Amino acid sequence: MQARIGGGTRIIALLGVPTATFKSPLIYNPWFRSRGIDCVMVPMGCEAADFAEFLPLLFRLRNIAGALITMPHKVAAAGLLDETGLAAGICGSCNAVKRDGNGRLVGDMFDGEGFIAGLRGKGRDVAEASALVAGSGGVGSAIAASLARAGAKRLALFDIDGAACERLAGRLRANFPDLVLETGSNDPHGHDIVVNATPVGMKPGDALPVDAERIAPGSFVGDVVLAEEETPFLAAARARGCPTQAGIDMVFEQIPAQLEFFGFPAAGPEELRRLAELDD
Amino acid sequence: MQARIGGGTRIIALLGVPTATFKSPLIYNPWFRSRGIDCVMVPMGCEAADFAEFLPLLFRLRNIAGALITMPHKVAAAGLLDETGLAAGICGSCNAVKRDGNGRLVGDMFDGEGFIAGLRGKGRDVAEASALVAGSGGVGSAIAASLARAGAKRLALFDIDGAACERLAGRLRANFPDLVLETGSNDPHGHDIVVNATPVGMKPGDALPVDAERIAPGSFVGDVVLAEEETPFLAAARARGCPTQAGIDMVFEQIPAQLEFFGFPAAGPEELRRLAELDD
Repeated sequence: MQARIGGGTRIIALLGVPTATFKSPLIYNPWFRSRGIDCVMVPMGCEAADFAEFLPLLFRLRNIAGALITMPHKVAAAGLLDETGLAAGICGSCNAVKRDGNGRLVGDMFDGEGFIAGLRGKGRDVAEASALVAGSGGVGSAIAASLARAGAKRLALFDIDGAACERLAGRLRANFPDLVLETGSNDPHGHDIVVNATPVGMKPGDALPVDAERIAPGSFVGDVVLAEEETPFLAAARARGCPTQAGIDMVFEQIPAQLEFFGFPAAGPEELRRLAELDD
Repeated sequence: MQARIGGGTRIIALLGVPTATFKSPLIYNPWFRSRGIDCVMVPMGCEAADFAEFLPLLFRLRNIAGALITMPHKVAAAGLLDETGLAAGICGSCNAVKRDGNGRLVGDMFDGEGFIAGLRGKGRDVAEASALVAGSGGVGSAIAASLARAGAKRLALFDIDGAACERLAGRLRANFPDLVLETGSNDPHGHDIVVNATPVGMKPGDALPVDAERIAPGSFVGDVVLAEEETPFLAAARARGCPTQAGIDMVFEQIPAQLEFFGFPAAGPEELRRLAELDD
């Protein structure tokens, strides 16, 4: 249930396609209602071809309060901003946009920090770790950059688009010269942290994004796919004895920082989890 | 309260500025919830300068179900359509837009029929009537055209923009050759029906749009301004013994036809009034 929408209601757009797996409105909107904030998050199924035109116009609406950006727009969004935050600058992608007091479009990327916060909340540390990040798109770039910032010593990057993978590697090398970087293999063997940041797993019948048989039982395995049920990849990892983190955990853990970015009152992940209406 | 907004939710945009007086979301959204329809009406404060660019992009969103158009976009909207309904074609303005099965933008204008339906619901007839319509913008054009279609014999049109007034008069002359048309005076004396279709009355301290002292006590007086309280113009008319119709009545009376236009299940004005959450 959502507080009623009237003439004074402001909008946070959630931009991406397909919209079916969107979860953020089910977290943000109950929280807005609980706090008496006259704002609503609305999914907008914007096509990739329209995004560059649509985003600036959306931000000319008088009642726009911000936008969350998801697949496939995270990299494109970073290129449309007047200013990027530190994380967005390093990873070259962006999942939250607002207009600042001067009308400039400002954005930052919260996926990576959300992933790390969830991992730490489960008692794992990143320092000196070796990690495989499958997927070099918006969210994979963010997770890779945040792992590097958190002190990982070795990162293996893989993407079926080899050029995207090399672009990310180049950006990380420039920012983290001591990091051991490898590209071109998605073999999880020997990594402490294994992350699926590809869309593989969104559709029923998808193959596994990484060969789960090659993951060591103690490795920490994360998936960014937002599924109602545990993804087959996480299920396979859990069956091997790996601690896992679902996409929804990354979402919850980053919302407190997003709320601060948008200028809303502070909230903790526990409050957000308690209010969320995710059970379908 | 609104049914929860998730990944499957479709949008009806309500486009106009300023948004403060918007009432339609407070009628549509409780009705969507009551019927279990996963759709939400969202106010979008689109600037006049952006409208022509924004509307077509909005209709490329995968989850757009339609748009209601209000001030100041009703005339501009009619010019952006691939096809207009009969009412929109005559009055040259439009307040509802959808995408048809072929991706074409189709629109129609429901304000005029809403006004007439409300008037008839209050026991008045239009046939052979003489009417003054102050304001030749989107809604004034629609009301004038609907009065003409309903058999009014004489229409006086007035607008501070004399050219807009003459354009409307020309359009009405072409469609209703037997109608007695006058322009250039907003004197309500001698008219059975007097309508304020200007924005005068939206702001506190506005003058009256028409000299209420010159309205005959039995005349039917309507106002399109959506105010929480009775507008000063309607209050003055009521003080003179005139039956009146508020802007919100015109809104309620046209929604059943809008729902049909958008392809939703049928609903009557009584059901919509019972569910509406207008009391602030």
